[in-house]
Amino acid sequence: MMTADNANRIVSVLEKTLTDLARDLREVNPWGEDVCRRLIAFSRGGKMLRGRLVVESYLLSGGDPGPGGEGEAARAAAALELIHAAFLIHDDIMDQDSSRRGAPALFAQYQQLGREQGLHAPGHFGHSMGICAGDVALFLAFRILSSLKTAADIHQRLLSLFTRETSRVAVAQMQDVYHGARPDMVAEEEIFSLYLHKTARYTFSLPLMAGSVLAGRPAEVTAALEKIGETLGIIFQIKDDELGLFGSEARIGKPAGSDVREGKKTLYHYILWQRADAGQKKMLSGVLGKQELAASELAAVRRLVDKLGVRKEVADRVESLAGETRKRIRSAASLPAPFRAMLLEFLDYNLGRGK
Amino acid sequence: MMTADNANRIVSVLEKTLTDLARDLREVNPWGEDVCRRLIAFSRGGKMLRGRLVVESYLLSGGDPGPGGEGEAARAAAALELIHAAFLIHDDIMDQDSSRRGAPALFAQYQQLGREQGLHAPGHFGHSMGICAGDVALFLAFRILSSLKTAADIHQRLLSLFTRETSRVAVAQMQDVYHGARPDMVAEEEIFSLYLHKTARYTFSLPLMAGSVLAGRPAEVTAALEKIGETLGIIFQIKDDELGLFGSEARIGKPAGSDVREGKKTLYHYILWQRADAGQKKMLSGVLGKQELAASELAAVRRLVDKLGVRKEVADRVESLAGETRKRIRSAASLPAPFRAMLLEFLDYNLGRGK
Repeated sequence: MMTADNANRIVSVLEKTLTDLARDLREVNPWGEDVCRRLIAFSRGGKMLRGRLVVESYLLSGGDPGPGGEGEAARAAAALELIHAAFLIHDDIMDQDSSRRGAPALFAQYQQLGREQGLHAPGHFGHSMGICAGDVALFLAFRILSSLKTAADIHQRLLSLFTRETSRVAVAQMQDVYHGARPDMVAEEEIFSLYLHKTARYTFSLPLMAGSVLAGRPAEVTAALEKIGETLGIIFQIKDDELGLFGSEARIGKPAGSDVREGKKTLYHYILWQRADAGQKKMLSGVLGKQELAASELAAVRRLVDKLGVRKEVADRVESLAGETRKRIRSAASLPAPFRAMLLEFLDYNLGRGK
Repeated sequence: MMTADNANRIVSVLEKTLTDLARDLREVNPWGEDVCRRLIAFSRGGKMLRGRLVVESYLLSGGDPGPGGEGEAARAAAALELIHAAFLIHDDIMDQDSSRRGAPALFAQYQQLGREQGLHAPGHFGHSMGICAGDVALFLAFRILSSLKTAADIHQRLLSLFTRETSRVAVAQMQDVYHGARPDMVAEEEIFSLYLHKTARYTFSLPLMAGSVLAGRPAEVTAALEKIGETLGIIFQIKDDELGLFGSEARIGKPAGSDVREGKKTLYHYILWQRADAGQKKMLSGVLGKQELAASELAAVRRLVDKLGVRKEVADRVESLAGETRKRIRSAASLPAPFRAMLLEFLDYNLGRGK
């Protein structure tokens, strides 16, 4: 359950689906196949967390495994991973992060191609191709979702779930861009709103609900999963911020300190800002949002986070959210016991994860 | 038929739909409503060509007009116009066109907002918000398509048509970006491939087929419309290139000569290049793809197009495509006579249009 095998299985379904789609796109020009090939390589580097949650939720909700073992859930999972790839491809352009999942970001791959072929303005060419590649991934995801073989009413529920939630994520992403560009600190509730809408509902509520809908479970079950996903996901994001601040590039697959460099308004930065004195605030102002961040500057931020007890404060918040999540899971009587056990297990994994 | 009234009607359905969606997005943060408001203003400036073709095709295919007059075709039309808005929003970032439909491009609107609010790097902020806004428009379009009230088999056919065709357009857009960045001229068949996949199938085949599918017409009718849309659309694109080269900003709603500035590989530029002598090629090389194009340089290109008989050559090609299109329309026995009449009328409008 939630093993690396499941991730490999989703990558292989995604690979097969993209290979079929590439055949159709070949009629247009060679770029469709080129994008599909890059998307397959991109997927191999991912954790497939969202996709695995779709499949797990489907099977633990009593969905028919069918001959492949996951019924249509594996294809819905592949579609969600493709939507996620699209978001990451576009995010990397916005965040100017040139590596992702331990490899060059997609736009950076096209910049490289542009330089090799002597194209005009290869930097801009890469950004343009990255925007297109993200768009292609989105359309292909909806193409897969549209072609799922399931009862009409279930299909309708699933499509409305996916389109509603993903449109909300894109709107949350705008807020994230805005926060990054604002010179001042934002309010704590704005940070939590972003955690909820950009990460939690999308990474947990959506896949858990999708699996349950595909298995034909009624709306009250889906609603319980929605709430569980929200707190589970907020914890996940806070852990992600922790890794972004303290993890090394080798460990997290993207440059260390990228949240600091982008001036991301994380819970860490928020509390740090509240506790800093005038001198420390001055240092932080010069460093948060600085594109050419020196290793020594990142180290200074890290030291201050420890020194001012920010780590402890964040850990306490996480502990309290974890308690709330456990309560939500245990009281979800409509979920089968093995489903609840998986969710509790995942919560614990998440609390301890280092990647 | 194909009147300004129809365009207004589609804008008003789109406006109502976006207003409803904005209410849901308000739960996330204020940007969803902000994007919806900008998308409504953006739509008001558009011709709604694709949307009108969906509605016309639906009604002329015998679709039930329902209480509103266009059944669900108006909402499918609104969704297609929203997809088109998304493409234009992303295109303007790629093409660095800061005005569109007589107003600032969406990314330029956000750059302005960034400057007014004193945000970090307002130029980059505008690009990032533009990428997000296009993504939001895409998700909202699929949200509308997913919610159409129609028979399950028709819904399935419609969704697979939309997702297949739009994924192909996005792949064609990559080729367009690549052509723009290539320092050399491309082959004639590559230009026509782009005309077919980026414009013709998307602007004509897709909406004509969508209306027909929604009206429940069988596959052979849809196939006839697909072929008619292809040549009709290639003519449309060539006329668009003509306007891009010879039209004024006031007339076309975007900067004059933008295709020259971007070094777009149009049929005009292709034939011009074939006919130019060494000295003229040298002048053209310095001007095609030049971002800071002077009015005198644009005028020199225009003079050369006339002098070398390129206009006449293009007009001959268009005449031959028009003959082929008329033949396709007249021999489409499965289409009702009024539908064929509308297509012929539209062909003539297109041949003479100045906007």
